[in-house]
Amino acid sequence: MQKRLKSDLARILEPIEPYLKKVDDQIRERLSTGVPLIDESAMYLFKGGGKKIRASLVILCSGLKAEPSGDAVDLAAAAEIVHCASLIHDDIIDQSLLRRGVPTVSRKWGSRVAVLVGDYMYTTALRVAVGEGARSMFPVLVAATSDMVKGELYQLEYAGIDRIDKHHYFTIIELKTARFMAACMKMGGVKGGFSEEESDILYNAGLNLGFAFQIVDDALDVMDDSAMTGKDGGNDFLEGKVTLPFLHLLENVDGGERSKLTEYAKNPTPEGWEYVRRRIREAGAMEYSLEVAMGYNRKLIELMGTFPSSPCRDIILDLSKFLVERNY
Amino acid sequence: MQKRLKSDLARILEPIEPYLKKVDDQIRERLSTGVPLIDESAMYLFKGGGKKIRASLVILCSGLKAEPSGDAVDLAAAAEIVHCASLIHDDIIDQSLLRRGVPTVSRKWGSRVAVLVGDYMYTTALRVAVGEGARSMFPVLVAATSDMVKGELYQLEYAGIDRIDKHHYFTIIELKTARFMAACMKMGGVKGGFSEEESDILYNAGLNLGFAFQIVDDALDVMDDSAMTGKDGGNDFLEGKVTLPFLHLLENVDGGERSKLTEYAKNPTPEGWEYVRRRIREAGAMEYSLEVAMGYNRKLIELMGTFPSSPCRDIILDLSKFLVERNY
Repeated sequence: MQKRLKSDLARILEPIEPYLKKVDDQIRERLSTGVPLIDESAMYLFKGGGKKIRASLVILCSGLKAEPSGDAVDLAAAAEIVHCASLIHDDIIDQSLLRRGVPTVSRKWGSRVAVLVGDYMYTTALRVAVGEGARSMFPVLVAATSDMVKGELYQLEYAGIDRIDKHHYFTIIELKTARFMAACMKMGGVKGGFSEEESDILYNAGLNLGFAFQIVDDALDVMDDSAMTGKDGGNDFLEGKVTLPFLHLLENVDGGERSKLTEYAKNPTPEGWEYVRRRIREAGAMEYSLEVAMGYNRKLIELMGTFPSSPCRDIILDLSKFLVERNY
Repeated sequence: MQKRLKSDLARILEPIEPYLKKVDDQIRERLSTGVPLIDESAMYLFKGGGKKIRASLVILCSGLKAEPSGDAVDLAAAAEIVHCASLIHDDIIDQSLLRRGVPTVSRKWGSRVAVLVGDYMYTTALRVAVGEGARSMFPVLVAATSDMVKGELYQLEYAGIDRIDKHHYFTIIELKTARFMAACMKMGGVKGGFSEEESDILYNAGLNLGFAFQIVDDALDVMDDSAMTGKDGGNDFLEGKVTLPFLHLLENVDGGERSKLTEYAKNPTPEGWEYVRRRIREAGAMEYSLEVAMGYNRKLIELMGTFPSSPCRDIILDLSKFLVERNY
């Protein structure tokens, strides 16, 4: 299924493939140090592929008016490196065993290498973005990176079922996902020759795309198993993370049922999860979540409608449709 | 003894105390988010004090010509936040229990919070340095931060006794310590109104100070116990880190003894360490290391001599003398 996702995405992104190749080259070049431990661990996850959605957003937005620029390639590479660093650190935190179908960096090299290689990648990414041409966008990338990490910390703070509600959930996904995608679209826009005001519309479009993406991702986790996504399976609930389908379910049950569900969430077990998953399905909480995601997607379509028609605009719309409608 | 170090340092740095207070305010202001978990864990180590050597270097170099500037305070705060982030991540990596005399962040909140709060502090520090006025120095701070992390990774790569030699040791401490102190001095210099060329002399002076500082730090670890430094005690050897006194000892023993020492280093135990420590002392490897450190300090004095006499210059010289001659 991971394969299917990649081939569907590859078809959509095929027109910007030459730019994504340049992004790959840039990533490899920037991360290589000549020290085997660093080079192997830093490049490891990239070898597994990855969706490169963030790089694509930078490239696509930089190409809404004319050909995508070289500066956009630098920023796209920086965005992917930041994203990959965050995955490596997430996998330490969640003690995940698999990522992109292969053992995680922390499992393969241990958490001390994973901590440092993540730090190394964060700083390298920011160093890329300090390069000539990309520098004006540097504050945007730093702020987005900082917000992403803050979002992860919010998630820990509000992890408990007694503390989190839908409001917290949306704050968390805005910080950890949406603002970063928004920054990617804005950076591309600025590099593509748009005004500050137009680029801010792209930022806003990116926020909506990010919300839609993360909500779908969280909903898919409800149906997740290892064969489908290359991840561990059943994850969020078992890691104590409460996401939209579950929060919606809680809003639609009586007090007794709510106590029972809350108890399961506090002491997550595979058996508890089987029950919660069934109740989520019965309550239509999946449909609800996907409808919320589609609402964000409609807002994105509306915002992109303020830009003239172009091949890159069409690809952005295809990409967002794909990200919302995928069921894997 | 930790107390004694602080009071001796405080006396030396007393004239810039008002600026260091402003640095503290800036750190607190920048790190506070309103989310208790983040605010408590991020400010935790600062409450224990810390030597603030890096902040002092920025302030002092910015004051070599006139009064230290406000921009220098921002950069000094950023430097301290970066340093503190690196300590938090180091303590995960080394599984240390104590830092600055109190439990480490990873021990108190667990490694998932420690990973994220370190990331949060790194990005926050860089965000501070993106502020107006400080922005021109941003690439210097990013490069220094990146090198610091790379130095830690080099240390892991060359940790094994079979791989490390003096050349690797000096590369590691240049990357992980000296370049960051150099960047602090350069950033201060630029903000203090010096030319690029003059600021590069300060960078060079900072490199020498950094080498001297780290060599002394590593030598002190040979004599270390928990009561003296607020750290765990006996550390480097037991963590598999090979430092200058041991490398010097290895160069000055015959083949049989070398095999024996190497064996101890490969399987470090407290008993092995007792033996190695005694041999280090007998071989005069402590005196050798301190002499190397003093060589770097002499170079620093020479470089600082190219700047006109001023109160801040005198403090830099006092500070470097103190850092090299301290025995705690």
